Amino acid sequence: MKIAIYGYGNLGRGVETSLYHAPDAELVGVFTRRDPATVKTLTGAPVYPASELKNFKGKLDVVIICGGSATDLPEMTPALAKDFCVVDSFDTHAKIPVHFENTDKAAKEAGTVAVISGGWDPGMFSIARLYASCILPNGTDYTFWGRGVSQGHSDAIRRVAGVVDARQYTVPVQSALEQVRSGENPRLTTREKHLRECYVVAEEGADLARIEKEIKEMPNYFADYDTTVTFISMEEMQKNHRTLPHGGCVIRTGNTGLNLENKHCIEYKLTLDSNPEFTASVLVACARAAYKLHNRGECGCKTLFDIAPADLSATPAEELRRNLL
Amino acid sequence: MKIAIYGYGNLGRGVETSLYHAPDAELVGVFTRRDPATVKTLTGAPVYPASELKNFKGKLDVVIICGGSATDLPEMTPALAKDFCVVDSFDTHAKIPVHFENTDKAAKEAGTVAVISGGWDPGMFSIARLYASCILPNGTDYTFWGRGVSQGHSDAIRRVAGVVDARQYTVPVQSALEQVRSGENPRLTTREKHLRECYVVAEEGADLARIEKEIKEMPNYFADYDTTVTFISMEEMQKNHRTLPHGGCVIRTGNTGLNLENKHCIEYKLTLDSNPEFTASVLVACARAAYKLHNRGECGCKTLFDIAPADLSATPAEELRRNLL
Repeated sequence: MKIAIYGYGNLGRGVETSLYHAPDAELVGVFTRRDPATVKTLTGAPVYPASELKNFKGKLDVVIICGGSATDLPEMTPALAKDFCVVDSFDTHAKIPVHFENTDKAAKEAGTVAVISGGWDPGMFSIARLYASCILPNGTDYTFWGRGVSQGHSDAIRRVAGVVDARQYTVPVQSALEQVRSGENPRLTTREKHLRECYVVAEEGADLARIEKEIKEMPNYFADYDTTVTFISMEEMQKNHRTLPHGGCVIRTGNTGLNLENKHCIEYKLTLDSNPEFTASVLVACARAAYKLHNRGECGCKTLFDIAPADLSATPAEELRRNLL
Repeated sequence: MKIAIYGYGNLGRGVETSLYHAPDAELVGVFTRRDPATVKTLTGAPVYPASELKNFKGKLDVVIICGGSATDLPEMTPALAKDFCVVDSFDTHAKIPVHFENTDKAAKEAGTVAVISGGWDPGMFSIARLYASCILPNGTDYTFWGRGVSQGHSDAIRRVAGVVDARQYTVPVQSALEQVRSGENPRLTTREKHLRECYVVAEEGADLARIEKEIKEMPNYFADYDTTVTFISMEEMQKNHRTLPHGGCVIRTGNTGLNLENKHCIEYKLTLDSNPEFTASVLVACARAAYKLHNRGECGCKTLFDIAPADLSATPAEELRRNLL
C-alpha cells in the first residue's frame, strides 16, 4: 500500500519509522505546511508542501494525518477524506461524535474509508474497555494513565512566568490500582487515581515558591491533583527527561453466576518507551485496515470498534488461525 | 435473540447464567443427550432431548454448542451449522484449521454463521496476541496460564491407581514473567514457564510414594514440569478446591524507532474465579455477533479475528463511541 504522511511532528516521525519496518507499505512522501526545504526526514523520504497533496489523488492508498486534535484534525480529516482514504488520531474524547459525523459524511460522499481516533487512548484502551464490557456486562471499568509524560500538562507549566522548560509525569496511585484489581469497585476521585510529578527548569533568580504555587493551583490541570514540583537544572532535564514514555492500564472487574457470585478481572496494560512511536504503530495498522476495507468496497468513517482484528494484520487469515488462535 | 444451549455441563450452565443476565437474549431451551427427566436447569429453563433440536429450525437465532473439543465439537458444529447459526468453544489449537474448513463449508452451503473457538484461549488471548502482533511487528509474545485448575491434568491424575480425587493447578513461574515483562525476550523451556501443583486424595493405605512418582513421571502431562504433589483429605479437597479458577496473561514486548531503539510492552491479563462461566460469557457475546452478522446477510465460519468488537456488544454504535472510545 502506498502511504503519505500529512504533518511531520513527533507523530509523523513515528509513522515514518513504523512504515520503514512494515513489509507491506511504501512511504510516498511527507507533506508539511512548513517550508519543505527546512524539513529533513529520518529515512530520506521526499518532502512536499501540504498544498501539493491534491496532485497525488489516485496515486495514494492511504493518507495518515498527523495533526493536532484541537484545531488541525477537525478540519483536515473531513477535507482530506474527500480525495483519499485517511487515518487520524483524533483524541478529544468529548468531540469524537461530531468528528465522526463530519468525517462520515465526507467519506461516504467520496466513497473513501476514514479511520479516526487511532492510537492507544482513544484506540487500544477503547477496544479493551469495549471487549471487557461485552464479556462482563455486570462490572465496572477503570482507566489509569502513566507513569508517563503528559505533553499538554508540560506545555501548561511552560506558560508559567519564569519557567524555561518543564516535564510533567502522570503517575497512577498504586493503592488505588490494587483496590481496583481486587474487585472492590471503589469510587475514586480524580485526586485518588493519579499524582502529577512536575520537573521544572526555572530562570535564574526566579521566585521558585511563586512558580510552585502557580503550578499547583492551576485549574483543570493541577488543582484537583496531588502535585509535586521539583526544580532541576537544564542539564538534568536534558539528561533524564528527554524521552516521551507513557502507558497505563484498563481494568474491568465484574461478576458472573446465577447470583453474580463469581468475580473476574480483565486488565490491559501498556508500558511504552515512546508514546508517539507507539501511537504511530497503531495508525499504520489502521491504515492497513482502511486499505483492506476500501478494496472490499466499503466506505465511510470507522473507528477501531468497527474493524475486525484480522483486518489490521498483514498476515493471511489462514496463517493467523494456525499460529495465533 | 432466541438462544438454545446444546450440551449441559459446566459450560452449558455458565451459558445459562450468562443469558439470564443478558438484556437482549432469551433462552428457549437446553438440549441434552441425557434423559431430560434427570436434568434440572439452574433457571428453570425447559430441557429437551438433543434429537428434538431439529424441530426448532426457524425458531432459534443461535445455538450455543457446549460440547467437548475431543470428539463432540468436530462432529456437532458442522452438523448443526446446516440448520442454525452456531457458536462453539473448540479449543484444540492444532486442529482449528480443519475444524474451520469443515464448519465453513457447512455454514456457507446453509447460509448460516458459525463462530468457532470462542472463550479465552482460544478467544480473548488469541485476540490479544493478534492486536499486539499488528502493533508491534518487531516483537515476541508469550502466553502464561494460571494460577488455575487444569481439568485435563486433574483428570489424568484421577486415572492413577489409588487416587480418589485430584485437582491440578497450573502456576506461572514469577521470575519468568518478570523477565518477559522487562523485554529481555528470554528463550524459555516448558519447565521454566509453568509449575504444576497437584492436590491428591488417595485411597486409605495406598502407596503414596508410588502415586507421587507416577504423577511426576507422566509423559506429556507432568514429566516436562516441576511438579509438586500434596496429599490431602477429602474434606480439605471439598472445602478448599471446589471451584474452577483460572486465568493467565498474554505479553508481547517489541521495539519501534528507526533503529528499533524504543521498547514497549503490551500485557493482557485475566484473573477468573470461574473458568467455565467466563468462557460462557465470551460465547454469549459471540452469539450476539453471529446474530448480527447473519442479519446483515453474511454466512460462513468466523472466529473472533473476523468480528469487529462493536458486533459483540448489545449497545448501539453511537453510544459506544460516546462512552467508551
